[in-house]
Parts: sequence; structure tokens; C-alpha cells
Amino acid sequence: MSNRPLFIDGLQYNNWSEEIFQQIHQGGLSAIHVTICYNEDFQETVQNMIDWNRYFQKYPDLIFLGRNAEDVRRAQLDGRTAIFFGFQNCSPIEDNIGLVEILHSLGARFMQLTYNNQSLLGTGCYETNDSGITRMGRQVIKEMNRVGLVVDMSHSAERSTLEAIEISERPIAITHANPTFWHPALRNKSDDVIRSLGANGGMLGFSIYPHHLKNKSDCTLQSFCEMIADTADMIGIEHLGIGSDLCQNQPDSVVEWMRNGTWSNEVDFGEGSSSFSGFPEQPHWFKDNRDFSNIEAGLKEKGFSDKDIKAVLGQNWLNFFDSSFEPL
Amino acid sequence: MSNRPLFIDGLQYNNWSEEIFQQIHQGGLSAIHVTICYNEDFQETVQNMIDWNRYFQKYPDLIFLGRNAEDVRRAQLDGRTAIFFGFQNCSPIEDNIGLVEILHSLGARFMQLTYNNQSLLGTGCYETNDSGITRMGRQVIKEMNRVGLVVDMSHSAERSTLEAIEISERPIAITHANPTFWHPALRNKSDDVIRSLGANGGMLGFSIYPHHLKNKSDCTLQSFCEMIADTADMIGIEHLGIGSDLCQNQPDSVVEWMRNGTWSNEVDFGEGSSSFSGFPEQPHWFKDNRDFSNIEAGLKEKGFSDKDIKAVLGQNWLNFFDSSFEPL
Repeated sequence: MSNRPLFIDGLQYNNWSEEIFQQIHQGGLSAIHVTICYNEDFQETVQNMIDWNRYFQKYPDLIFLGRNAEDVRRAQLDGRTAIFFGFQNCSPIEDNIGLVEILHSLGARFMQLTYNNQSLLGTGCYETNDSGITRMGRQVIKEMNRVGLVVDMSHSAERSTLEAIEISERPIAITHANPTFWHPALRNKSDDVIRSLGANGGMLGFSIYPHHLKNKSDCTLQSFCEMIADTADMIGIEHLGIGSDLCQNQPDSVVEWMRNGTWSNEVDFGEGSSSFSGFPEQPHWFKDNRDFSNIEAGLKEKGFSDKDIKAVLGQNWLNFFDSSFEPL
Repeated sequence: MSNRPLFIDGLQYNNWSEEIFQQIHQGGLSAIHVTICYNEDFQETVQNMIDWNRYFQKYPDLIFLGRNAEDVRRAQLDGRTAIFFGFQNCSPIEDNIGLVEILHSLGARFMQLTYNNQSLLGTGCYETNDSGITRMGRQVIKEMNRVGLVVDMSHSAERSTLEAIEISERPIAITHANPTFWHPALRNKSDDVIRSLGANGGMLGFSIYPHHLKNKSDCTLQSFCEMIADTADMIGIEHLGIGSDLCQNQPDSVVEWMRNGTWSNEVDFGEGSSSFSGFPEQPHWFKDNRDFSNIEAGLKEKGFSDKDIKAVLGQNWLNFFDSSFEPL
């Protein structure tokens, strides 16, 4: 048995480098779900996978491609980090449902049905009108269920999210968002969504992206841990994990590209504003992957049991991975 | 143990249907290397994989995607057929060496460096000038060796083929061709190539495509088996298998597309001619997959031992698969 903790992050989008891979190692992360697509089509997404393949070849002592839960256990034993691919948009499947299985074969394990806008599959959280899951969306959820690609509704609108939870035959995830009862951001999730997610076996990854936090960059660790306690009271600790949404070392041009892709002639500021359009500053207690131990300490301070701390920081995601990634 | 024979075909390109999958089953084939690309680029090749995924879903009792030699043993036990993907051209990797690993992840196990023409990697057998393996070709062979994608030189020119055998650190294959000492077709292989192939651990799959046969469609089974015996005398039985090049139920428009793709304004007739441009008729002793037993009988008649018959009809390919498909 390894003495390493079981830390899993349900979403990161860093400007990856050897420095960050070393920090992951120092922080003791056994698995990270990394975003490899915001706006890319199929072939552009494949190119992002090729870029990751080069990282895997270059840093084999630090990282490798994760395909299933067993890879997380192997990573924990080896002192390495299993990297799981995910998309924050359905753009990689274009209009071709056959690409769901192809992308799963290439390692994809999470796919959001929408980013902020309406997609071919459902409605994003910044649209005025939410028409729910589309005809193609129903077919694609079924196919994702079949091959073992997790439905992620982090950036989707309320009705679409509730419908996806209902339609999906396997539990879904909201990999990176917080409850609106704590901080009413458009990207955070209503009590209805959170209750339905939990009732259907899903997972919520708590975000540490400042726009999702009460008092943003000034959010305290105490407040963050209280939110976790309150959500546990609401739906049970077993549905909760971390999905930090860490976007380390990214230039502001990247968040502009994430929000705008090629879909608009006017600049969309997403969660920001014209006067504050860049990446916000991380709270002092979560700057990079070495700070997982701060959350651990915060949860202990708040009175969580050792078992519940382990559950939130890794074991719950691992249980979810165990039942989510293999074909039906 | 299964009572089923171990029959493996090193190349087929049929107009696939339930009827043909049933014939494969009746013929007792445990593995077939199928061509899924002649002229397609990356995304078109992925679409061909999607079409095969639909076959695998529709006929799970007959076929499944083969990824390694163990799958052949499983197929033999189950009474099913493992389908191994291959390309007769390097067009699926376009000009992107990173696509080699991607396509291997998706199941590709053989790739010709050229079809009939010059490619980015080497020279095809119908070019007047053969300049050998290119700069990119050397890099791609190394990458194919690394990931476990077999170099296939069936349609390549003499010098390029000899160089590929030398450059490759893993044994290569000529999946479907015959010796020119028996029938001097441009697609068949010289003594030099065959000797070098054998000396470097490679495999030759004997073709039953009439243009590669002495007397074409009228070729006798006896003559075909004599050729196998003579080649075994030359390089040893362990390097020999069948690569029938069966193109069952294909309309003649397909062979025109195979030869011409989108590269020419004038019609190229390949091994055919303006007066005989379509698919030639198969010899009476090999019409479809149920006729493997005829070859077995022909080899017995010619005096091959049971062990050598088993080697040529499947065991040699299986040994080659054992050492070829896993990453280094």
C-alpha cells in the first residue's frame, strides 16, 4: 500500500508545463480530469490529444493517460498522476454520433453537452431560453452511456441539466460548479439540480474558480468548507468531490478564446465584464496543486471526519470512475 | 481447446455484408486483416472505422475488433473472427506523424507506406523512378515501430521496400503479393526482396488476386502450392502466410476508385488494362472464405506436413502478431 493520499481533481485547465507536472507530483494528485477542448472540432481535438501524447512520452515518471479507475490506483502506488481527458463542449463530435465511440477509444472520459451557448445537444447556461435536451442530445446521451463517456453539465442551463439527469441511464457529473444557495452565479447550480444530481447517483465537483466563489478571490477557506458541509447535509457526502477549475499560468487571451471561439463578432465576457475580462486571481489558499493539503486542513478544522475528508478529496471520484468509464 | 482450425488471412477487401461474415464463420477464419483505406484522409478513415463499429455492434456473435494476438486466440475459442484494421496507403496520417499513435489507438495494425504512387514516405510500385524511403518516411517507420503499427510494403517499389526492411527495427510485412520468380507481375516481389524480408524476420502473405497469379484466373491450385513450396525452400516456411487480397462482391467502380482516388485526370488501369479494367474472376478453388479448406487440401496433396500446413494457414501470422502489435 502507498502512503500517498488519494487526491483527485475533477477538472483543471492549466497551461501545462514541466513545472506544473512537478507541482502535481508534489501535491500528491493521483488523478486529474483535464479539459482538452473548448471550441475545437474533431480533428483539432485529436491534435490536442497528440500534444498530450508528447507530454506522456516526455514525462513518463510524472504522468500517463488514464483510461479507467484501476489507472488511478496504479498512479497512487507509483507516485504518478493519471490524466483523464474531457471536453467542455460537444464540438469534437461535430454532427456525427459515431465520433462518441471513436473519442472514447482515444481516451475521452467526460464531455459537456454544452459550453455556455446552445449546442446541437442542449442549452448552455448563458442562453436566455432553455429548450432542454435536443433530439440529437437524447441519442448522444444514450451513446455516451453505452461506451462509457460521462455526461458533464457544468456549463449547461437548468432545464437541460435536469433533463440530462433524467435521460441518462448512468449517473452524470457536474465536474466544476458550486451551489447557488452559497453564491448565486449563473454558472452555479440550483437546489433542484443538486438534489436531482445526488438522487440519481451523480457527482458534484466544487469549483475554486473565483467567479464561482462567495467573495470571489477573497473567498475564505472556512466559507468554502462550510459550503461543502451544507451541501453534504443536503444530498450526502458521497456525491461530492473537488473540481477546482484551476487555470494556472494561462494568459488572458486564452479566457477570451474560451468564451468566444469563432462564434461571435462581438466580444463575450462570460463570467467577467468589459472592465474585468481576464482570469481572476486565485484565493490565497488554492494557488496550485500543492494546495490540496490546505483544503484537507480546512475540512478538518470544520469538523469533517477523516473518512469524509478522504471521500471528498478523492474516494468519491474514484468510486464514480469505477462505475462510469467501461462500456455497458 | 477449440477444435476449430487456426486460419488467418493477411488481407481482404470485401464488400462486407452479413452474408460474407457468415462465410467467414463457416470457413473458420479466426482473424482477418481488412483494408479500411486506399485513398482516404484521416477523417474519412475514421468514418470507415465508425462504419466497422456498426458492424461490430450488429454482428457481435460473428466478429469483433482485434487489437492483439490474444484476441485471435479468443476468437478461435469463441468461434468468432477478430478483424484487424489496415491501410493500403499512408494517406490517413496526412502530413502529421502524431496521427500514427492516434490511429494505432483506434485499432490500426498495418499501414502500407505507399499504394501504387509516390507518397510522402516512399515510392509505389508503378512509379518509373524509385527514390527510396523519404525523410518523413524514416521518422514514420520509427514511430510505427514504437507504437506497434506494422510496416506493409505490398504495393511499394523495389528500392523503397529493401530500405524499409533495413530501416525498420521490427520485422515488416508484405501482406499480399507473390514472388516474381513464379509470376513476373509488377506487384509481385523479387528474390532480393523476399530473401531480405525473410532474413529480417518479416512475413509474406501469398495473394490469390488473379493479377498476381500465374495464368491469372486459370491458375491451378497445384501451381499455387508449388510456389509456396519453392518460396519455403528459399526463405523457410516460418515467414509465409496467406494474404488472399479477396475483393468479394465489389462492383468494378470500386477498383477504378482504388486505382485513381482523386489524383489523376486520366484513368489509371493499374494491373488491368483499358480492355479489362474491372475486377478479374477468382480462380475456382478460392471464391470466398469457405475455400480455405481447399488450400489446406492442396498443400497436403503437394506433400506439406500437417505442421507446415498449420504454419502457413495461420500459426505464422499469429506468431508475427504476437511480436508486432504492442508498443515497444
